[in-house]
Amino acid sequence: MKHGGDLSEAMAHSGGDAAAWLDLSTGINPWSWPSSGVWPDAVWQRLPSRADEAALLGAARAAYRVPAGTDLVAAGGTQALIQFLPYLAAPGPVAIVGPTYHEHAAAWRDAGHQVIMIDDFAALPGNVIHAVIVNPNNPDGRIAGHAALAEVAAELRRRGGWLVIDEAFADVDPASSAVALCEAGPIVILRSFGKFYGLAGLRLGFAIAEPAIAQRIAAALGPWAVSGPALRIGADALGNEAWSERMRAALTRQARRLDAVLTEAGFEIVGGTSLFRLARHREALKLHAALARQQIWCRRFDYAEDWLRFGLPPDDAALQRLAAALKSIV
Amino acid sequence: MKHGGDLSEAMAHSGGDAAAWLDLSTGINPWSWPSSGVWPDAVWQRLPSRADEAALLGAARAAYRVPAGTDLVAAGGTQALIQFLPYLAAPGPVAIVGPTYHEHAAAWRDAGHQVIMIDDFAALPGNVIHAVIVNPNNPDGRIAGHAALAEVAAELRRRGGWLVIDEAFADVDPASSAVALCEAGPIVILRSFGKFYGLAGLRLGFAIAEPAIAQRIAAALGPWAVSGPALRIGADALGNEAWSERMRAALTRQARRLDAVLTEAGFEIVGGTSLFRLARHREALKLHAALARQQIWCRRFDYAEDWLRFGLPPDDAALQRLAAALKSIV
Repeated sequence: MKHGGDLSEAMAHSGGDAAAWLDLSTGINPWSWPSSGVWPDAVWQRLPSRADEAALLGAARAAYRVPAGTDLVAAGGTQALIQFLPYLAAPGPVAIVGPTYHEHAAAWRDAGHQVIMIDDFAALPGNVIHAVIVNPNNPDGRIAGHAALAEVAAELRRRGGWLVIDEAFADVDPASSAVALCEAGPIVILRSFGKFYGLAGLRLGFAIAEPAIAQRIAAALGPWAVSGPALRIGADALGNEAWSERMRAALTRQARRLDAVLTEAGFEIVGGTSLFRLARHREALKLHAALARQQIWCRRFDYAEDWLRFGLPPDDAALQRLAAALKSIV
Repeated sequence: MKHGGDLSEAMAHSGGDAAAWLDLSTGINPWSWPSSGVWPDAVWQRLPSRADEAALLGAARAAYRVPAGTDLVAAGGTQALIQFLPYLAAPGPVAIVGPTYHEHAAAWRDAGHQVIMIDDFAALPGNVIHAVIVNPNNPDGRIAGHAALAEVAAELRRRGGWLVIDEAFADVDPASSAVALCEAGPIVILRSFGKFYGLAGLRLGFAIAEPAIAQRIAAALGPWAVSGPALRIGADALGNEAWSERMRAALTRQARRLDAVLTEAGFEIVGGTSLFRLARHREALKLHAALARQQIWCRRFDYAEDWLRFGLPPDDAALQRLAAALKSIV
C-alpha cells in the first residue's frame, strides 16, 4: 500500500462504492474548511493575478508566523515542491530521517541523488550535504527539537546543502514549526494546506526559506503555479485564526477518542499527531484485511507489519462503527 | 509587459476596478466551458484518486487523438511542464523558434541550458541538442508543417535531445497537431486545457510523448499533480466533442469580426489563431496606452513596438466598445 486516501484500491480489495466506505487511511482533517466552492466565474476563467497571489502569501505569512526576512512561495501542493526541490538542490547525497513519508526518498533518487536513510537525526553521515526530516514525522509523530534542527542546518550550511523540513502536520502543533530558524540556516520548510484544512483535492502548499532559496524555488515553479480556487480558498482559510484554534482543540479531543477505541481493541498507541494515530498490534495485517471486508480502510506499512495508521473518524457514528468492527474481529 | 491576463497591471496603469475593464490581453476563450463549479465535497476534500486521473487521461487521449503507443501525462497547467522539462532533458543547448511565448527561454536558461533563439526552424544550429517550437506560434500564428517537424525530430534523436512542441493553441486547428509524430521521434507535445476551454484559473495541461519520455515526466511530477476540480472538469469538457466543434466554428466567426474592426481602424493583420489576433500599426504603443485609458487592455510587445495582440471580445457590445474606442483614438 503506497499511499492512503485512494479508495480505488480499497474498492478493488473489497467492493462497494466510495460512499459505503469509512476512509481512515489518510491524515486529512475530516472536518474541512467550509468553503462554499462558489465564486465569481473569474476565479475559474482568468489567469490567477499577482494581486491574488500576494493576498494568499500575506495570509500564509501571518498564519505560519513567518518572520520578516524569510520568504514564502506558493505551489500546487506540497508534493509539487517535494518533486522539484531535488532538482534545485546542489548535486550530492541526502540523508532522510525515516521511516517516513516515502515520496521524499523517491523524488531525490529520481533526480539522481544518493539517498541514505537514517533513523537518528543527530548521527548525520559525513558524506551527505542535504537532509530531509518530516516534523512532526509521519507516521510516528516524532518531533525533532529546534536545537537539533539548528545544529544540522548550520552543519549543512558548511557543506553547501539544504535542510528540508516537511511540516505537513505542524498546523496541529504550531510550536513545533522551525520557521524562526530559516533566517540562520539553509532550511526549506514545507507546509501543506490540504491536510489541516481538509481540502486535499485543492492542491496547495508552501515553501518557506531565506530569500535566496525562496527565489530559486519561485523561479523554478514559474507563474500561475496555484489555481484560482486555491488562491481564493487558501487566503480565506489561512486568514481565519479563530477557526484554526477551534479546530486544533476539536482534533485533539477526537484523537483521544480514537486512541480509546484502539486501546480497547488491544492496540498499543505508538504515536502520531492529532490528525492520525499510529497503533501497534501483532495481528495488524489481518486486522487491516478484516476491516477492509467491513469497508473500513486504514493504512498499513510494508516495512512495519505490526503497524496500522488511522485517520480521525468524522463523527460518533464512524467512531462507533470502527469500535464495533474491531470488536467483531479481535 | 511580461504577460497578458493580469489586470493588476492594467488597473495600476489606468485605475478602475476589474469589472470595468475589457480584457483582450490574453488568448483565453471568453466563452468558457459551462462548468457548474459545484460537485460532491469529495472533489475538494479527498486526494485525487488514480481512477479520477485515468478518466481524465482517457478523455484527453480521445480529444487529442493520441494514438496507441504514445502516452499522456496530466499536470497542473502547461506552465508546470514548461518549467520542469528543462530539468529532465539531457544537458546541452536548446534552439527556440522565436519570437514566441517567452517563458520557454526563461525556463531553459534557469535550468542551466544555453538558449539559442532562431527564426527559421529549418536552420537548426549544429550545436543544439534540443529544440522548442510553439505551434501554432504565439503571437503570430505561424504553423510548422509535419514534414519539417518530423525532420527536426529525427535529427534531434541522433543528437540525443528532445523536440518540444507547445500546442497551446492547437485546439482551434486540430490538423496542426503533431501528435501522430510522437511514436517516431523524441517529441514532447504540450497541450493546454485552460485556453480553449476558457478556464485558465483551473490549471490543467498535458504532455504527450513516447512512453519512455512520458514515464520520465510522470515520475518527475509525482502523484496528485492535478487538483480534484481540474480532474472532474477536464474529463467532462474533453469528452464533449460536440461542444468543441461548435466552439471552433464560433471562434472562427468572432475572429473574423475582430479582424474587420482592427482593419477598419487601420491595423494590418499579421496573423494569429482564432483565439487571438496579431495586428500591426505604426502607432501601436500609443494605441495601447490610449485603449488602456478607456479601460481596454490588449497585449503589447517589447520586441516589436508596432505589434498589438487582441484576444476575442466576448460579445457584440465588447466588439462595438473596441471599435468605438479605436475610432475615437485613431
